[in-house]
Amino acid sequence: MAARAFRSSSSFLRTAVSAPSSFSRPVLAIHQSRRRFAVSASKMSDYYAWEPEGPTVKTAIPGPKAKAAIAELDEVFDTRSLNMLVDYQKSSGNYIADPDGNVLLDVYAQIASIPIGYNNPALLKAARGDDMINGLINRPALGNFPPADWADVLKTGILKVAPKGLDQVFTAMAGSDANETAYKAAFMWRRQHERGGAHVEFTEAEMASAMDNQLPAGASELSIMSFKTGFHGRLFGSLSTTRSKPIHKLDIPAFDWPQATFPLLKYPLEDYVEENAAAEKAALDEVEHLILNYRVPPCAVIVEPIQSEGGDNHASPAFFRSLRTLTRKHNVLLIVDEVQTGVGATGKFWAHEHWDLPEPPDMVTFSKKAQTAGYYFGNPELRPNKPYRQFNTWMGDPARALLFRSIIQEIERLGLVEKTAKVGDYLFGKLELLAKKYPDQFQNLRGKGMGTFIAFDNPRRDEFLVKAKTFGVNIGGSGKEAVRLRPMLIFEEKHADILLAALEKIATSW
Amino acid sequence: MAARAFRSSSSFLRTAVSAPSSFSRPVLAIHQSRRRFAVSASKMSDYYAWEPEGPTVKTAIPGPKAKAAIAELDEVFDTRSLNMLVDYQKSSGNYIADPDGNVLLDVYAQIASIPIGYNNPALLKAARGDDMINGLINRPALGNFPPADWADVLKTGILKVAPKGLDQVFTAMAGSDANETAYKAAFMWRRQHERGGAHVEFTEAEMASAMDNQLPAGASELSIMSFKTGFHGRLFGSLSTTRSKPIHKLDIPAFDWPQATFPLLKYPLEDYVEENAAAEKAALDEVEHLILNYRVPPCAVIVEPIQSEGGDNHASPAFFRSLRTLTRKHNVLLIVDEVQTGVGATGKFWAHEHWDLPEPPDMVTFSKKAQTAGYYFGNPELRPNKPYRQFNTWMGDPARALLFRSIIQEIERLGLVEKTAKVGDYLFGKLELLAKKYPDQFQNLRGKGMGTFIAFDNPRRDEFLVKAKTFGVNIGGSGKEAVRLRPMLIFEEKHADILLAALEKIATSW
Repeated sequence: MAARAFRSSSSFLRTAVSAPSSFSRPVLAIHQSRRRFAVSASKMSDYYAWEPEGPTVKTAIPGPKAKAAIAELDEVFDTRSLNMLVDYQKSSGNYIADPDGNVLLDVYAQIASIPIGYNNPALLKAARGDDMINGLINRPALGNFPPADWADVLKTGILKVAPKGLDQVFTAMAGSDANETAYKAAFMWRRQHERGGAHVEFTEAEMASAMDNQLPAGASELSIMSFKTGFHGRLFGSLSTTRSKPIHKLDIPAFDWPQATFPLLKYPLEDYVEENAAAEKAALDEVEHLILNYRVPPCAVIVEPIQSEGGDNHASPAFFRSLRTLTRKHNVLLIVDEVQTGVGATGKFWAHEHWDLPEPPDMVTFSKKAQTAGYYFGNPELRPNKPYRQFNTWMGDPARALLFRSIIQEIERLGLVEKTAKVGDYLFGKLELLAKKYPDQFQNLRGKGMGTFIAFDNPRRDEFLVKAKTFGVNIGGSGKEAVRLRPMLIFEEKHADILLAALEKIATSW
Repeated sequence: MAARAFRSSSSFLRTAVSAPSSFSRPVLAIHQSRRRFAVSASKMSDYYAWEPEGPTVKTAIPGPKAKAAIAELDEVFDTRSLNMLVDYQKSSGNYIADPDGNVLLDVYAQIASIPIGYNNPALLKAARGDDMINGLINRPALGNFPPADWADVLKTGILKVAPKGLDQVFTAMAGSDANETAYKAAFMWRRQHERGGAHVEFTEAEMASAMDNQLPAGASELSIMSFKTGFHGRLFGSLSTTRSKPIHKLDIPAFDWPQATFPLLKYPLEDYVEENAAAEKAALDEVEHLILNYRVPPCAVIVEPIQSEGGDNHASPAFFRSLRTLTRKHNVLLIVDEVQTGVGATGKFWAHEHWDLPEPPDMVTFSKKAQTAGYYFGNPELRPNKPYRQFNTWMGDPARALLFRSIIQEIERLGLVEKTAKVGDYLFGKLELLAKKYPDQFQNLRGKGMGTFIAFDNPRRDEFLVKAKTFGVNIGGSGKEAVRLRPMLIFEEKHADILLAALEKIATSW
């Protein structure tokens, strides 16, 4: 894939219009494109044609125009979590613009959910296509009335990138309901086993108790196990597995489900080999203990490859291999939540490909950079024994499924996963140097070999993020004091250099 | 609004191209449009230009092409709930097409979620606009990074049709999460009152217990009350309030939340005045009893204006007025779930406008025909005391919010709510005649004065729906034996006549 993309790239320099984006020589491409396409933006076929060469900071952020618009918005919409008001029409590639003319390098990317840049020309073209417009204006109830080409849309899109061993999909709307439908599949699967198989009919007592939210079938004595500091969404079932911060959970009723400790590793890894191995063993022991002893036994364990909202907590591939073995041993399903880690940012399409698992996870959930959501599975028994048990009106959004297909095509055409792995290595190497130079500012640097999915801790993290904007970079945080980097897949070394320069400015500005 | 639309309509007959759709003389409009626009479909500016004059049934449904495509789809996607495979490109207006060339009058409309017809020209135009494309390809995290024009999009769209007294909105993705976020707002509001106000900080014990899913703050001893035979969604919180059918709930853990009996009225209403009034009084007494005595006391009651999935169960405006008074008296919030009843089909934009309430509901949820979702509210105290308590990454979809704005514009331009009220009266009158003629086939006819939101019972309902397709009509069911009519807002008397003819054919075909 990478080789093909590089060929495309050089042909671009010759033909300019018909050839695809230049990834390896973006600056030249910008200049060419600007000269040739200044008049008709719609003809541009290059990511970088619209991308500025660097950030521009004209005002405080928010500036006067943004402040006025925020005040207006606050009359009807809660703006207290507002980070930055955005002019999306003027945002381009890796750069996010605001109404006051500020343009920032964006390594937060809508909480890790912009895959291949703002106003990506390939997506612009796809959005203008008849298929996408049809999906947008004729929204089907996908479970009842799927489009005639739905199999094709799935096979050439969502399923083309299905994790190894998982060849079926249930489509959803966002990360929370992707996880919750996966949980529902797990509960139904386990209860079906307990009943003796798919052919066993429900009893009258089960049907009556289900309607009353009571035992045996309406308040199942089964649970979903998750990890402390994990995040899996904010609806009632997913929030019961989320253990990120009290503010996410306070006052919302939750199920009595178990949580195991996630092995919070110490850095640099090479200095804590034994301690970290012991932490991972202790976590696995706790998982097994809870499977065997928790008062509401789990039918599934859900885990993020890298705990993202919870503070960018990593564990070793060996830990995840053992978790797979352990869950299989106890007939507990393993759900891998790739909502934030999926779609390339770790240098593999799915982060769990880093683990070399002995057998696939039972389900893998996705959303964010996929721009649609759902879960993959392989085992036909995860289709419940009757129709309408796993069902809702829309079951996803075909326009968003088509967008994901176009995203996948661009990722493959340009070899963006492989490139992200390389750029990530470059960025990590430079960050190691910064961390040596300013050890207090860049603590616990982590994400080596995981593409651009990199984080470090800073004791004054919230101020750090505010300062970042003044130096032209939009960055997000996670957990209590992590600075998390979530660039898009079109983030290159030149963008890394801009980011690194800004980070050093922040570090020396206190 | 109606008057304006009629003027537009007559001007259409003169100018054909520039004037908007003819609602009052569609047949003529079809013929004119066909002659003039046969070549360039994209120039058409009329709903009916693409609409056939009636259904066409060429094969059994599914026909050979659909069967082959379904078999292919089933390899990767559960097709057991599939009703009909659809060619959306060939569907138009009130008519749904399949790959075998069958074209049916569609009075099910993607489970009541197509508002103004397949391939509506106004929506087609909107979908091609820069705003919509921008919303589609640059999807924001709306809580953190809203677009600069988000206030305008909301005020000229979603909030333009906000129910009286409710001037704020929380946007969501689908009906289930619209309801669940409304529930979260209710729990946080009530607990804030119990604590003594927004300024009271959370205790350490509350924060610790929230993280453990335990009391006091992580497994709140509050509940949401719903009604038996109600439907509010299928995620874990919404499903705990759904009481439609066991198959929706079996094996999925649910909260111990209370349910009151919905007053299942007897028909014809004029023959059961006293019995029905007694049923409504008994239901209200039960609501009050449960508020005062249920072991997990409710902080909110959720109710559908017409229980839709549960079988098209109506109650009187007086019932709902009393429910509003009763909930206010006990400081319990009233959430009106307008996911299926909202956006015009009952002859009012919101079905609860039929009730003449003494004061507004506390929250109104919407989805389906809105093509986006969320909840309206008026009381500023329903914004939680801190940011990030009610939050998620996407918080809706701006492309879908823009689509709703275009839908609202078309509804207003053509006076479609008022027209639906009239067409509904026409249809109901004709159905009354059919019910007199075939009393066994059209039992418990209901929905008088409620636009086209009409239903009747049939003892062989499932067969009835299958037969309907052979006579050229796509109809849905609800509850155990209801046939529910859910035409779009562009359903006219001529479509009603086609539907009525088909219904009579079915009735005489056994």
